[in-house]
Amino acid sequence: MTHLEFDLPRPPKLKKDTLRVIPLGGLGEVGRNMTVYEINGKLLVVDCGVLFPEESQPGVDLILPDINYLLNRLDDIVAVILTHGHEDHIGAVPYLLKRRPDIPLVGSQLTLALVEAKLAEHRIKPYTLTVEENMVEAFGPYECEFVAVNHSIPDALAVFIRTKAGKVLHTGDFKMDQLPLDGRLTDLRHFARLGEEGIDLFLPDSTNAEVPGFTPTEKNIGGVLSQVFRDAPRRIIVASFSSHVHRVQQVLDAAHERGRKVVLVGRSMVRNMTIAEKLGYLNVPEGILVDLKKIDNYRPEEIVMMCTGSQGEPMAALSRMANGDHKIQIEQDDTVVLASSLIPGNENSVFRVINGLMKLGANVVHKGNAKVHVSGHAAAGELLYCYNILKPKNVMPVHGEIRHLIANAELAIETGIDPEGVLVCEDGAVVDLVDGKARVVGAVPNEYVYVDGRSVGEVTEDDLKDRRILGEEGFISIVTVIDRDTKRVVTGPDVHARGVAEDDSVFDDITPKITAALEDALHMAPEKIHTTHQLQQIVRRTIGSWVARRLRRKPMIIPVVVDTPTEED
Amino acid sequence: MTHLEFDLPRPPKLKKDTLRVIPLGGLGEVGRNMTVYEINGKLLVVDCGVLFPEESQPGVDLILPDINYLLNRLDDIVAVILTHGHEDHIGAVPYLLKRRPDIPLVGSQLTLALVEAKLAEHRIKPYTLTVEENMVEAFGPYECEFVAVNHSIPDALAVFIRTKAGKVLHTGDFKMDQLPLDGRLTDLRHFARLGEEGIDLFLPDSTNAEVPGFTPTEKNIGGVLSQVFRDAPRRIIVASFSSHVHRVQQVLDAAHERGRKVVLVGRSMVRNMTIAEKLGYLNVPEGILVDLKKIDNYRPEEIVMMCTGSQGEPMAALSRMANGDHKIQIEQDDTVVLASSLIPGNENSVFRVINGLMKLGANVVHKGNAKVHVSGHAAAGELLYCYNILKPKNVMPVHGEIRHLIANAELAIETGIDPEGVLVCEDGAVVDLVDGKARVVGAVPNEYVYVDGRSVGEVTEDDLKDRRILGEEGFISIVTVIDRDTKRVVTGPDVHARGVAEDDSVFDDITPKITAALEDALHMAPEKIHTTHQLQQIVRRTIGSWVARRLRRKPMIIPVVVDTPTEED
Repeated sequence: MTHLEFDLPRPPKLKKDTLRVIPLGGLGEVGRNMTVYEINGKLLVVDCGVLFPEESQPGVDLILPDINYLLNRLDDIVAVILTHGHEDHIGAVPYLLKRRPDIPLVGSQLTLALVEAKLAEHRIKPYTLTVEENMVEAFGPYECEFVAVNHSIPDALAVFIRTKAGKVLHTGDFKMDQLPLDGRLTDLRHFARLGEEGIDLFLPDSTNAEVPGFTPTEKNIGGVLSQVFRDAPRRIIVASFSSHVHRVQQVLDAAHERGRKVVLVGRSMVRNMTIAEKLGYLNVPEGILVDLKKIDNYRPEEIVMMCTGSQGEPMAALSRMANGDHKIQIEQDDTVVLASSLIPGNENSVFRVINGLMKLGANVVHKGNAKVHVSGHAAAGELLYCYNILKPKNVMPVHGEIRHLIANAELAIETGIDPEGVLVCEDGAVVDLVDGKARVVGAVPNEYVYVDGRSVGEVTEDDLKDRRILGEEGFISIVTVIDRDTKRVVTGPDVHARGVAEDDSVFDDITPKITAALEDALHMAPEKIHTTHQLQQIVRRTIGSWVARRLRRKPMIIPVVVDTPTEED
Repeated sequence: MTHLEFDLPRPPKLKKDTLRVIPLGGLGEVGRNMTVYEINGKLLVVDCGVLFPEESQPGVDLILPDINYLLNRLDDIVAVILTHGHEDHIGAVPYLLKRRPDIPLVGSQLTLALVEAKLAEHRIKPYTLTVEENMVEAFGPYECEFVAVNHSIPDALAVFIRTKAGKVLHTGDFKMDQLPLDGRLTDLRHFARLGEEGIDLFLPDSTNAEVPGFTPTEKNIGGVLSQVFRDAPRRIIVASFSSHVHRVQQVLDAAHERGRKVVLVGRSMVRNMTIAEKLGYLNVPEGILVDLKKIDNYRPEEIVMMCTGSQGEPMAALSRMANGDHKIQIEQDDTVVLASSLIPGNENSVFRVINGLMKLGANVVHKGNAKVHVSGHAAAGELLYCYNILKPKNVMPVHGEIRHLIANAELAIETGIDPEGVLVCEDGAVVDLVDGKARVVGAVPNEYVYVDGRSVGEVTEDDLKDRRILGEEGFISIVTVIDRDTKRVVTGPDVHARGVAEDDSVFDDITPKITAALEDALHMAPEKIHTTHQLQQIVRRTIGSWVARRLRRKPMIIPVVVDTPTEED
């Protein structure tokens, strides 16, 4: 396989009738999926999602794909195709459409309904084109054929892109559940036809490429839920993702079977399920839904609540219940079901929630002790089927960390694909498809774009480094007022520490030394008159080395030296 | 089962010939294990370990058991029994011995050797008594009989404690590997004899109580390592815990089999293996060890390196190799083996290391893709054996989060133990054993004691809250110099932000408002003269609400108002 080299050159100018592919996000992380195709001056974008931050990115709300490459080319974009309605594929659409609101959005009915609801919050009304499987639509030089795929949200589509330079199959997220709840299979007959037509470049989902075997069928969950519901003595609370229509369907079905009412808890859950029901993706048994306000009309054993927070997100309903901080109070013998995956990195938060719920007396059912979740992504066994049915000439695994991309590349090679055409790339790689060969020809700059409060892209890696230092070590501020005429410190040094292990009184030892150091500097010969910045550096050095030695810590040091105004002022 | 109630009362005075048990750590967390026994005025301590912090405890080095309960009673301690040499059982010994250095330490040969090496770093030479399985020793009113148990470090012991009030079996950490590498089984014959004698209270390890079935045998690892070593084309780097003597033994054996030399990398690895070899726990084939400095004398395919960092600890050898920040540079086709568990909470760090190593071209073998690790703790199936062989009257599960303790309690009840005698407790619970019945009678205060740089117990929950806010949001400091005579702001407000998404210039809008608010306050009628603190609050409110509205963030606000000295000064 061909590994992306570090320090790749800027790519050469794109030749006529050559197809260029640039992943702007999703290669090197699970999230912010976005791929740009270019031929003869026209750009096609597939997906435009967000990445959720991890603890090494403190305070960050969201991470966007780096669209700098597109900013001068916005008018060349012929369409944005959205493969399905998950946040990591549609979440960044508002940020792109703020730059050019009339970029056409293309996707299935449910996908577009979800992205429109999101855009409404940003007060953007998009231009949309609804497509479905087997349809063919042309967008400038791209002829796109849509293929049904099965995933953990209904109505997901793969897209087959025909261009003058060759043909690309972009799967989006998928798995190959052979007994899907809604009967909508990943269409392997369609894959086979495309394979026979010839696929020059294949971009497959890599999330589960390391997982051996096959993802179990979603149908299994129904039986497990039914059993859990049968045994639950009192209330049942199920937490899952607010987009997981099939999981909610199974909860509705199990509740219906046991004669329980269902309360949808939380804004996103209510919004998404309202959309899904209206469009016919969710079948709600007559009279089963009950408003949270009317819950007291029912006995505990008649109630199921469906909420978010299965990843231990601190502000979601479930975490707040575990903290006793939600209007729904957990009671002894409530049954709580976490019907979702445990996304790596969330373990501490999730187990904190589980421990909190158990302490309040709940019985907690989760992936670790019952089969209440299956993944939405194809495991290694399924990917092998794909490679063998499609027999693509070149492969660029997408949607994963490096380890996932490499595992997927190894599967491709095992099925006999020429290793030279198997490209393990990272975000920003530039791949050109010429004469049936896909090759990395360079890279464009690609950074994490942080959304933080109202700011987009203003938080730098340096800001995050500051936050990490502040969060680990706290800070010490030292305010000193000096008089340059008398060459004396007139007020201070006042030392205040926050997030530091010691009382402020520990600094009584060092303040005279700071005064002395400052006054020494002020008494220097006139040609050595110090700027305020230099005086601040003197304070920083004096206290910094003392703190490192005495407290064995390295807090951030914030020296402030203020000149008293002289009479001339 | 009996759940520990919240807000338990202070315990009653302990009656003559009653045994009191107080867990000071390890119940509610995996770590800082420590249990205090008391009868007729004498205290026996079992284990004294540390807990490693998680990301919600930023900057903290270690967490100790809360020994406040012991501070007035140090002279009543007859001994500290250490069940085995892991940090979560011995790591806090130096902090206890700093209070009273002559408390006798009791443990097996290896356990004491490891704790002595640790104490030497703190310049403490302890009084020790080496014991081994089947020995009986009296410590004041406690007759202690030691039982061989099998764990992920050699020479672990359970302790059976006979007192006038009843008999207690305290397992320490254990599993029941039926084919242990060193042939030293958890001694079920001994357990059976103790069961026949009668056990009033059983304190079993709960770590794996949620895991169904049986922990696989350590022997399986050898074959897997041998195969990995056979297939490795160049250097092999194995990361594990520096106390895992058996794992290192298997690496030595596999290296020997393939004719490779072994380099021990890192201070703790070298120190512990030197101790283990000297005491006969590690069998080092003649001439197999090579110093890191001489590594260039060998070809890559002749080398195995054994290092720490299997949990992604940022300062450990493996993380630094993954960052290209270690003298050992990872090369294409190196094989890296993470032969250890993935402790929950460390996933992000570990996968960051794996991705880093793979990016540098290494083949990474870990628990997720090969059976290169087995746990050191008994799973549910093994615990059931214990309950049935021991048939204790009462059970208090130890060593686990609430979910583990509850799972263990449920196993106890399933084997027929009276649920009233199955106590799910948290740290600080006070359990009295009277007439064969163990009951919770109260609780003593119990907090996390944080070690942070040179400070022990000075970091408060408020300090950590400050650090979390600083880490997530950064801070804004506003320094203003005022003149109370002229009632004017003479310098400032100077606004500086760190860890905030915006340039300092964004604050240009708000500084005039701060000046106005301060000067308004200064011009108030004399009876309303403001203290500096009040003026600072005015600054805080003025900028705080502006920041929340404009930046949609809540950074820490640090207002500093300085009075210029008046002429009288």
